[in-house]
Amino acid sequence: MTEPFKKLTRASDAWMKLKGRLSPVRPRRVPLSRALGRVLAEDVAAPLDLPPFDRAAMDGYAVRAEDVEGASFSSPRVLKLVGSSEVGRSPGTTVSKGEAVRIDNGAPLPKGADAVVPLEYAREIGERLEVYRSVVRWENVSRKGEDVSRGELVLRRGKVLRPWDIALLRALGLEEVEIRAPRATVLSTGTELQETLGDALAKPGSIVDTNRPMLARLLEACGCDVVKTEIVRDTDTTTVLRKLEEALELADLVVVTGGCSVGRKDYVAKALNKLGDMVFHGVAIRPGMPTAAAFVGKSLVVGLPGSPVAAFVSYKLFVETSLSVLTGARDPRPGPLEANLAEKVDSTPGFMDLVRAVYSEGVVRPVRRRGATLLSSLSKSHGVIAVPEDYEGLRKGTRVRLYLHWQSWLDVLEGEVP
Amino acid sequence: MTEPFKKLTRASDAWMKLKGRLSPVRPRRVPLSRALGRVLAEDVAAPLDLPPFDRAAMDGYAVRAEDVEGASFSSPRVLKLVGSSEVGRSPGTTVSKGEAVRIDNGAPLPKGADAVVPLEYAREIGERLEVYRSVVRWENVSRKGEDVSRGELVLRRGKVLRPWDIALLRALGLEEVEIRAPRATVLSTGTELQETLGDALAKPGSIVDTNRPMLARLLEACGCDVVKTEIVRDTDTTTVLRKLEEALELADLVVVTGGCSVGRKDYVAKALNKLGDMVFHGVAIRPGMPTAAAFVGKSLVVGLPGSPVAAFVSYKLFVETSLSVLTGARDPRPGPLEANLAEKVDSTPGFMDLVRAVYSEGVVRPVRRRGATLLSSLSKSHGVIAVPEDYEGLRKGTRVRLYLHWQSWLDVLEGEVP
Repeated sequence: MTEPFKKLTRASDAWMKLKGRLSPVRPRRVPLSRALGRVLAEDVAAPLDLPPFDRAAMDGYAVRAEDVEGASFSSPRVLKLVGSSEVGRSPGTTVSKGEAVRIDNGAPLPKGADAVVPLEYAREIGERLEVYRSVVRWENVSRKGEDVSRGELVLRRGKVLRPWDIALLRALGLEEVEIRAPRATVLSTGTELQETLGDALAKPGSIVDTNRPMLARLLEACGCDVVKTEIVRDTDTTTVLRKLEEALELADLVVVTGGCSVGRKDYVAKALNKLGDMVFHGVAIRPGMPTAAAFVGKSLVVGLPGSPVAAFVSYKLFVETSLSVLTGARDPRPGPLEANLAEKVDSTPGFMDLVRAVYSEGVVRPVRRRGATLLSSLSKSHGVIAVPEDYEGLRKGTRVRLYLHWQSWLDVLEGEVP
Repeated sequence: MTEPFKKLTRASDAWMKLKGRLSPVRPRRVPLSRALGRVLAEDVAAPLDLPPFDRAAMDGYAVRAEDVEGASFSSPRVLKLVGSSEVGRSPGTTVSKGEAVRIDNGAPLPKGADAVVPLEYAREIGERLEVYRSVVRWENVSRKGEDVSRGELVLRRGKVLRPWDIALLRALGLEEVEIRAPRATVLSTGTELQETLGDALAKPGSIVDTNRPMLARLLEACGCDVVKTEIVRDTDTTTVLRKLEEALELADLVVVTGGCSVGRKDYVAKALNKLGDMVFHGVAIRPGMPTAAAFVGKSLVVGLPGSPVAAFVSYKLFVETSLSVLTGARDPRPGPLEANLAEKVDSTPGFMDLVRAVYSEGVVRPVRRRGATLLSSLSKSHGVIAVPEDYEGLRKGTRVRLYLHWQSWLDVLEGEVP
């Protein structure tokens, strides 16, 4: 392939330039039902105690600890049984000096009681209860506020909200929460693109647009609200410019594929040069070279290659990484798989090569397919090996990191090599 | 805490017993729109070629390679320009001997042509084209079927379908796909459980049911269809039995929380003993001891503890692991984080302790909270350290594995310690 770009930016330099200009998007309040998988934008303090009342932590008898001090099998204490406390009901009684109440695990502790004697250490004899063991204050009691005390910080900003976090927010009665979810739009440019195979077969020279649905789902999985996706038939710079402007009215982030090289008909690159402030254009990666990033006001536009695999690689390196800043996410993530190469890998000096590879039985094997157009090479591989710019390849047996397609690739840009 | 179970099963033994009896659920055909994140149940062969036609891989001129053999700047070949081929259109012309056609990157290669001369190696002079470089056959052409040939196996059963897989299936015109998605129901038992905090506050002694929504979302994230969730007010064995039978009519997998210990009011355990074939009941884990698994016909019922964290831990160890068999998923997964312990961890000999811990700046720090009821300890931690049965604890500085809450814990049961 000839080299259309006069100058290419190294991947890590492109990322550092971009990262330096990113800032978190404005937070929004959403109902809890829309918060799963989104990034929390506020610190959440508990408006109430959890558990909301003192509860028995086992089946037994609610007592006053001082009444059973010194109790043993040889020297039982005798209390008066004055009622029972069941799960899901108000106890309806109190425990005064010398009294006990039958209680179920999870039931509210009656007023006056301060401990629970386990079932097997007591015996009912009519209205009387013989207790064979002492308990310390609050023994076998799950205290009010033991899980969460009112006012306590329970969730911190930057957290990706998982099912257990949503469950906690529900228990606290919080119906809304502040999140950072970038509004994103996806534009696929190309006069050859059709929605479905049926449409593509009806028009010779057409193909199905796979980038748009793929990128929309990827953006959603990273906590974005995808507000619009569209096929843009890019016949001139003005058309593309207008479509970009429309998208920018809706979105914090515009992802556009195709038309991003430096040819006569690369209208996206031309439009971005007119419209915004270009951060980089042309990156020394394979696949993915014709990638551009620009700011238009506070909004980020990333131009990706039109070929699906190149679009995917550039998305992982420059869009998904940006999302961690835009959302303010601060979660630890597992590292890549590490294994030895089952065969050698060739690469292009001066370029970072993202080599699709399969993990199997403890080794990593590159997928032998050329070209960036090959969508199937993603489905046939588990992840990529990043071969740095100053390597001519990697020898068989080299210990490598395999970055899975669905995990973060941030360390490809910020981590160690390879 | 006293020990209600006469005999506890070791975690890894419980898992091996369970695993030995699991088999994949029956596959179903679903539209592509419902296939994301599900496990493919069939091998998919391509019904057509991708790309569907020969395409130019760069801007230039479509030629017959033999016509430009030996061409150079000092000795150009001269061809007759007979038309152009644009992206998204049928070429409408053919290339005969001595002819060339102007062509855009991505446009269909006209009949007769077998290579593309890059733009910068040719010059138009009226109707004539001077060519300054030779090309080999199919040079700068993206061949029909180069990505996927008709009949080729593109996706294998066991694959978790990701956005790029769905994109590929779309490009191939496949509108339905066979998946394995277990039908799951979630029952929360407890007379104290309410849907919302409002309901709970209105009824003294009540609490919000957090298990049901938490488990439903977790099951969905693992590729299940959650067909029903319900609060069951467990006042006797018959009520629970009837609810379990109702659930089993709908589901391959029933997850039920609470009532799973061996007390008088543990109706779930009693019902499971009547209804099905118990695989294990009572596991030597903390939290999570009152866990049970039973088969009723071919359906699996897992009884989890009622306390949210214990329910979560048992879910991760025995339900989520089972799902990999029920769905037939065969994807590689990244391992846990590895780091040194920032402080010592105590544990109970004879039990596998699942200690919630935070990862921060290269070290792992346990969350100092007692008890299994503490839902907030999940939100305040990133994952768990598994301290095996024969340890009394782990010293400060020990290298440990932190299994993140959202990743697979299978290696806790099948992997190395700790």
